[in-house]
Amino acid sequence: MYSFLNDYSEGACKEIMQALNDTNLEQTSGYGTDEYSDLARASIRKHLENADCDIHFLGAGTLTNLIAISAVLRTYQGVISASSGHINTHESGAIEATGHKVLTIPSTDGKIYPKEINALMNHHYDDSNREHTVQPAMVYISNPTEVGTIYSKSELTELSALCKKWDIPLFIDGARLGCALTSKFNDVTLKDIAKLSDVFYIGGTKMGALFGEALVITNPKYKKDFRYHIKQHGGMVAKGRLLGIQFNTLFTDNLYMKLATHANEMAQKLASGIKELNFPFLTDTVSNQVFPIFPITLIEKLNEKFVVALWEHHTETTDVVRLCTSWATDENQVDNFLDLLRNLVR
Amino acid sequence: MYSFLNDYSEGACKEIMQALNDTNLEQTSGYGTDEYSDLARASIRKHLENADCDIHFLGAGTLTNLIAISAVLRTYQGVISASSGHINTHESGAIEATGHKVLTIPSTDGKIYPKEINALMNHHYDDSNREHTVQPAMVYISNPTEVGTIYSKSELTELSALCKKWDIPLFIDGARLGCALTSKFNDVTLKDIAKLSDVFYIGGTKMGALFGEALVITNPKYKKDFRYHIKQHGGMVAKGRLLGIQFNTLFTDNLYMKLATHANEMAQKLASGIKELNFPFLTDTVSNQVFPIFPITLIEKLNEKFVVALWEHHTETTDVVRLCTSWATDENQVDNFLDLLRNLVR
Amino acid sequence: MYSFLNDYSEGACKEIMQALNDTNLEQTSGYGTDEYSDLARASIRKHLENADCDIHFLGAGTLTNLIAISAVLRTYQGVISASSGHINTHESGAIEATGHKVLTIPSTDGKIYPKEINALMNHHYDDSNREHTVQPAMVYISNPTEVGTIYSKSELTELSALCKKWDIPLFIDGARLGCALTSKFNDVTLKDIAKLSDVFYIGGTKMGALFGEALVITNPKYKKDFRYHIKQHGGMVAKGRLLGIQFNTLFTDNLYMKLATHANEMAQKLASGIKELNFPFLTDTVSNQVFPIFPITLIEKLNEKFVVALWEHHTETTDVVRLCTSWATDENQVDNFLDLLRNLVR
Amino acid sequence: MYSFLNDYSEGACKEIMQALNDTNLEQTSGYGTDEYSDLARASIRKHLENADCDIHFLGAGTLTNLIAISAVLRTYQGVISASSGHINTHESGAIEATGHKVLTIPSTDGKIYPKEINALMNHHYDDSNREHTVQPAMVYISNPTEVGTIYSKSELTELSALCKKWDIPLFIDGARLGCALTSKFNDVTLKDIAKLSDVFYIGGTKMGALFGEALVITNPKYKKDFRYHIKQHGGMVAKGRLLGIQFNTLFTDNLYMKLATHANEMAQKLASGIKELNFPFLTDTVSNQVFPIFPITLIEKLNEKFVVALWEHHTETTDVVRLCTSWATDENQVDNFLDLLRNLVR
Repeated sequence: MYSFLNDYSEGACKEIMQALNDTNLEQTSGYGTDEYSDLARASIRKHLENADCDIHFLGAGTLTNLIAISAVLRTYQGVISASSGHINTHESGAIEATGHKVLTIPSTDGKIYPKEINALMNHHYDDSNREHTVQPAMVYISNPTEVGTIYSKSELTELSALCKKWDIPLFIDGARLGCALTSKFNDVTLKDIAKLSDVFYIGGTKMGALFGEALVITNPKYKKDFRYHIKQHGGMVAKGRLLGIQFNTLFTDNLYMKLATHANEMAQKLASGIKELNFPFLTDTVSNQVFPIFPITLIEKLNEKFVVALWEHHTETTDVVRLCTSWATDENQVDNFLDLLRNLVR
Repeated sequence: MYSFLNDYSEGACKEIMQALNDTNLEQTSGYGTDEYSDLARASIRKHLENADCDIHFLGAGTLTNLIAISAVLRTYQGVISASSGHINTHESGAIEATGHKVLTIPSTDGKIYPKEINALMNHHYDDSNREHTVQPAMVYISNPTEVGTIYSKSELTELSALCKKWDIPLFIDGARLGCALTSKFNDVTLKDIAKLSDVFYIGGTKMGALFGEALVITNPKYKKDFRYHIKQHGGMVAKGRLLGIQFNTLFTDNLYMKLATHANEMAQKLASGIKELNFPFLTDTVSNQVFPIFPITLIEKLNEKFVVALWEHHTETTDVVRLCTSWATDENQVDNFLDLLRNLVR
Repeated sequence: MYSFLNDYSEGACKEIMQALNDTNLEQTSGYGTDEYSDLARASIRKHLENADCDIHFLGAGTLTNLIAISAVLRTYQGVISASSGHINTHESGAIEATGHKVLTIPSTDGKIYPKEINALMNHHYDDSNREHTVQPAMVYISNPTEVGTIYSKSELTELSALCKKWDIPLFIDGARLGCALTSKFNDVTLKDIAKLSDVFYIGGTKMGALFGEALVITNPKYKKDFRYHIKQHGGMVAKGRLLGIQFNTLFTDNLYMKLATHANEMAQKLASGIKELNFPFLTDTVSNQVFPIFPITLIEKLNEKFVVALWEHHTETTDVVRLCTSWATDENQVDNFLDLLRNLVR
Repeated sequence: MYSFLNDYSEGACKEIMQALNDTNLEQTSGYGTDEYSDLARASIRKHLENADCDIHFLGAGTLTNLIAISAVLRTYQGVISASSGHINTHESGAIEATGHKVLTIPSTDGKIYPKEINALMNHHYDDSNREHTVQPAMVYISNPTEVGTIYSKSELTELSALCKKWDIPLFIDGARLGCALTSKFNDVTLKDIAKLSDVFYIGGTKMGALFGEALVITNPKYKKDFRYHIKQHGGMVAKGRLLGIQFNTLFTDNLYMKLATHANEMAQKLASGIKELNFPFLTDTVSNQVFPIFPITLIEKLNEKFVVALWEHHTETTDVVRLCTSWATDENQVDNFLDLLRNLVR
């Protein structure tokens, strides 16, 4: 059995394991004050061409989202998200648990657009009793989105401008950011991300690290006292070096982008092979998630050899499945999958 | 420079690094549902001689405390703790951030006693307007405590009986549990801990793991839906295998206790050497923390070669320092420290 | 100018003012333990034919909703509501501020139905990763709803049965409960409400009191320690007698229903008069809210003499307005409004 | 039986009842936007000689404290209070329920002093790991305090200066503010209170109103969006006029101070009479609370005719009781109490 279930089935890329082994018995100070964390921050800042941003390493994605969002918002404010956004659907109400409403905009492609956000903002501020409703005060997007789509540079630029117009921050969840930036359909750079958002994170867990996310705060307004927020939510890692060593490795020799490129290439190979057999897709494949629509009987056969995720029911006889690739995806297994598929449809 | 600053200066014990390396490219399911986590749970249950307890692996100590305490308490209830308890002093108000007051009992030895708790409970329930005050509904202790002292079996038995009398749970923070259980002054077993408490955790981060704590729930009342609590607070680790592999290793061949024994032995060696030179101590050394009282001028000399923590001021010319040992402490460096000390006092 | 803006424009009905004046200098104990509160509770229990329910008097509607919902739910649970529900739209995120997500079902008539709730419950429990999502654990409805519609006895009976099937409580927001129960389209009694729900409240603020709501807990599971919840959220009224005196008055000589009947009759008179002039309505008028659709130019003329609420835009030239009647509505002003309207359309 | 139990045993002063009766059927807009609330705000601003402060009327004291404190603090910050402070002892953890720790300073006279606060602040900012602890960020005092003592002008001036030095706000809980300001030992004016604090409230509930507190925000930093905070915590009163009418009455013809003066005079009369009989006191009587120490056998006799509060046990044979006077205290009953006491000690 080989699994295309998700992008966190394996441990970490070999470079990271090597670095962890090599440094294992060194003594370092705790809580992210070690020299490896400093090196990682310096390296990321260089890639962002932003010497002033604050960078905090955190252990996991939901933790990062809840800390960042609750740190930025005042208690009576809410965060705008696509209805399909991770914070709205798959974080067990973590944002609400910090006291904030997620204000949703319906979305089928996983994205939200300036026009929709502007309408939502106007709706709030046109209301003379607006204090009876939650004040929308932050925009949350993820890139890639939950359905693997990515934002173009012009889309991000417009979102950013709209947020500036309303004086609310733009937060980008980059759990799979590498896969957006190395997509062949992408025209956005890491530098653009840093410029166009106020807070964002560079995902490690799904991009080749054992665990960890690098939260970047570019807007000075949100930098102050941020470590208190981390500690109060249990997000301060005692052996902070673990995150420093991993991100320092990922941001050396372009490793982060190389790993993501591999994930995307494996997804493209899967998508092309499936397309050749004339299967339809829920969405075009642009990053590391592939959403083919297969007959249910076919899926049962595939499941004998491969683990794939059932995404949603499509018709009475067909389902959408998700194939997820990663830095660790074995190209031979991609070939095996496509071979099996060809055999099954013959 | 060698550091006796804390017990999380290094990475992980070699057995854990080996296990992580060996399994790195295996594919496993996420979020603690993998077979390594199952193995680790089975092994811990065997050590506890409790087949029915629930075990959840979490990434860090503060996160474990805040999840466990907020899951057990109802919103209007508070947790009883020593004034020196970690949740009251060094978690940035993490418990309060979940809505709960920490109800403190003054303590100098780090422990709290049945008589004090009983008085606090009576004070609450004797008040006819008791709903104007926070209902005390859980007892939090750590073993060892913040100042390295440990609870005896009879003390724990009495605490447990008192909690049962009042129908409130006893929670034991075991961030350094191994060092309590392998202290030469200890008469408590891991099995006792499981029997006498309702919820407790076996610390990994400070006991030889890269990171991670094993939360054990023995009281059936608190088991239901616990994974929701974990996820909602951002504590669900995507690559849950990392925790499973580490705890499986720690609970194979008695490794957990061996590592803790080393830490304790190094502390005893330090304490003996210091005592021979007639320095006084803040408390007797029973686990892996040593609290000698040194002249400030001496500390300055020691600091040229060794990192130690300033614990508190003692007199105008003396300070209490903390020397913390661990699974990783190099015995040669203990000898070097004592040699230097002997030279300095000569 | 006369206002049909809402049902809380005036003070209180004369019987309440009289009772407050008559008792003003009596000394009573605080926090709802006085004899007037006891009398009011006894009287309400008699009307409910339920001797065992707990009754707590609270100062305001949002406060009642947030206390009741957060007291019933566990931290990781959410409450199901119509998208138009007051807790989702007009309480500034009060429910989320207590840590809970409002799980919405789209609604145009203000109601939610068993089939929809059942689908939502199944969707949650069919998910093998359900702990990554908020557990739906309570149903919130209001009767009348935000758009003045009411639930029939068979609808409530089915909702209640579904909630029992899933073992989740049904909570009824009765801010305007009197207007539902005295609607000429209604077949539900106060006794039915008590039988079919687990927790509900009988609104006072909008029904003729100066302020105050009577929260009734019929399900024993939710009674324990409820006064702590009230106090912790600042809802404990020092001079609890004020609420006791008011509700005792309202539940003497059927006053509560008489006041509501007047509000409904005034709404019917408005609706009939408007209908005769062939204006369309957003919804049929069944309680004390009337939603006619008027030309914008007409509304401007009406606004010279009457205050009405703009409810929503309808077409380019027409708007929906809301006329709200109450216990205090002056029938002469209803006549004046209809006279003006007839003159304007002539 | 006559009660000296507290200062909220009766309804409201006759002037307030008259005003409520007179205005009862007028139509006003809701939520504090009515003209009576505007008049009350204007009148209070004049008394404060501060035209720019924001004034919000709220229903109750705990609600006011929790809204004001949680609005001012950021999530990781705590509020400094005397250990005996109302927010620490008698609000059921309302502050913690909003996520904030109450940082206590031990106090026997109910007050806290600049030196103690300064030490607490230094302790925090001297800690290089300060983000592991709660950031002290606000000072809460009440005037009078829980034991009836009052702050002098020089004490308040020093507290204010210290808060400015540390850039943290000073919040004054004025539940019984009138009794502080009209004490014969007082040298502070309402204008001083407004100048020396950042946020404070003028209590109504205990000072002659049916209910209600006037929260005054003088520091512009805390004014923004405050009504959202009120609404989110359920503190927005639909018939806001009720608060406006009451405070407008209280701040007409010096009524607020007159009512408080009566309460203080009655307390002085009680204290003098008791002192003449040579009973000791827990504290000197300076406002409307009297704390004599009586033999337990004597208290039993007194309890046959008068309700007094048992404050605390003193010796095996004596207890401290509290006699609380108010605007409503009947001087004849004060005489009766002293007569009875004289008879009993004879």
